[in-house]
Amino acid sequence: MFGLIGKMRAARGQRDAVMDVLRESTVALPGCLSYIIATDPVDADAIWVTEVWTDQASHKASLQLPEVQAAIARARPFIAGFEFQVETHPVGGFGLPVPEKGG
Amino acid sequence: MFGLIGKMRAARGQRDAVMDVLRESTVALPGCLSYIIATDPVDADAIWVTEVWTDQASHKASLQLPEVQAAIARARPFIAGFEFQVETHPVGGFGLPVPEKGG
Repeated sequence: MFGLIGKMRAARGQRDAVMDVLRESTVALPGCLSYIIATDPVDADAIWVTEVWTDQASHKASLQLPEVQAAIARARPFIAGFEFQVETHPVGGFGLPVPEKGG
Repeated sequence: MFGLIGKMRAARGQRDAVMDVLRESTVALPGCLSYIIATDPVDADAIWVTEVWTDQASHKASLQLPEVQAAIARARPFIAGFEFQVETHPVGGFGLPVPEKGG
């Protein structure tokens, strides 16, 4: 699996506008297993996004989908920048869909 | 919801021993919506854990469960430290259980 943990910074006071776009545009995408959007209790303009994909190719392909490109375009005016992003390799845990065997 | 994003460092060469304990002990716990364990492709002794709970009290209560205390005791000898931990307030996304209304 392929994972991303990222911290996005909204333009001052625009966090909820970004959150609204993220929530409205977060639907089942091919290969997406988890996409969780969170606020930060000590950083009012921050948004944490944690993602799990079946593989890196699925994540990369998602960025080309028309609905994802539209969401990026809608959110971009409200985003000041990205402060933190790490790639991870999720191996398991609780709350992910049960993997198909032999996939 | 209550979330945690944390980076744990295993003692050198002991990452997989920690991962094994985490995976074996990661079961459905009251209030746990997601608990994902991941390796770091550029940091061989690191483990990322991302958690979503219904609320902070559920997370706190989980630490007192016998099975969780047993897992902590088993993993502790292989853990060098915790490098990074942030609390988040997950608000939605994809891949979480559908919330009950009025909860």
